[in-house]
Amino acid sequence: MTEHTNERGAGLGAAALAKLFTEARTHNAFVGRPVPDALLVEALDLAKVGPTAANAQPLRVLFLRSPEAKERLRPALSPGNVAKTMAAPVVAIAAYDLEFYEHLPRLFPQTDARAWFAGNSAFAERTAFQSGTLQVGYLILALRALGLDAGPMAGFDTAKVDAEFFPDGKVKSNLLINIGYGDDSKLFPRNPRLAFADMAKIL
Amino acid sequence: MTEHTNERGAGLGAAALAKLFTEARTHNAFVGRPVPDALLVEALDLAKVGPTAANAQPLRVLFLRSPEAKERLRPALSPGNVAKTMAAPVVAIAAYDLEFYEHLPRLFPQTDARAWFAGNSAFAERTAFQSGTLQVGYLILALRALGLDAGPMAGFDTAKVDAEFFPDGKVKSNLLINIGYGDDSKLFPRNPRLAFADMAKIL
Repeated sequence: MTEHTNERGAGLGAAALAKLFTEARTHNAFVGRPVPDALLVEALDLAKVGPTAANAQPLRVLFLRSPEAKERLRPALSPGNVAKTMAAPVVAIAAYDLEFYEHLPRLFPQTDARAWFAGNSAFAERTAFQSGTLQVGYLILALRALGLDAGPMAGFDTAKVDAEFFPDGKVKSNLLINIGYGDDSKLFPRNPRLAFADMAKIL
Repeated sequence: MTEHTNERGAGLGAAALAKLFTEARTHNAFVGRPVPDALLVEALDLAKVGPTAANAQPLRVLFLRSPEAKERLRPALSPGNVAKTMAAPVVAIAAYDLEFYEHLPRLFPQTDARAWFAGNSAFAERTAFQSGTLQVGYLILALRALGLDAGPMAGFDTAKVDAEFFPDGKVKSNLLINIGYGDDSKLFPRNPRLAFADMAKIL
């Protein structure tokens, strides 16, 4: 008999669902435990196997750990996000590559998928933002799956981040994620969620 | 001693990571095992606790199960997606609510977050698409966490879906997800993934 969680068609146990979803929280403060580079690499290795349109994988990530790198980010942060971000062990700039399609001959060799996007910049940008954001979702859950906590943020000046970190104009910043081991004592109560009937129907 | 996967700061075991990420695949064919409504509700209940900008939760989902509902979708599908979608036990239309901000007084009571978006339709639409897509990522992994398999698709006519399913113009379709128990015998080999160095740096 295989382990419960490895059986095809069986769900994960309650403890795993709690770690990923029901007890996981957006953290604004972290304890002092260090975050090894190897865990950042492992989180991205997990996230990148998740599905994207035409396997395009447009997500690009800068993990800022050094004080120098984080200082470059400071001027782009919304005032309410400065202190917590500068104190986080690592902050990830999650971005998307507008020219992701140049990799498609290798990533999706079944057909000429590059031709769907090259020369159609509106469709390419929508796909880069859409699939790149899906991959941010996978990355947040991959970090949690490895025992880390995440504090994603949309509150920053994307134009300033792009000018500072992606000056060639081909990569656009999307979201920031503070990463570390969360300090549960600094959590606020969880805000409400919509009821199923407010967001979904079965037809 | 608590169960390994429930310990704060510890990662999930290899079997759980395999189910969520490393051995999970995008499925195009499903075995006959039925998908109870209760599992669809549970998957969305898990997905909706994931983080969104200002806790906005713009994701809206129609789970199409009846032949009549799926027939309404058929004309919007790309030719290559018709047969597999019509055969899937359930297909979800994942969409986003452009007027998500009307719920913010309840969902984010700390401040007047509604005012950030009401009257700024470009910012509201970007946030709806961005956070709504994050939530699609959470939903795909929640389905997997419950033992189901997902087949997400971007290949459909969003304007046709919107006209048929969201005629009031306030909700926009984003991605489709075929849902069931995957038929492993119908899988193709996994396509390549980018190397860490092609997508990320630690600074």
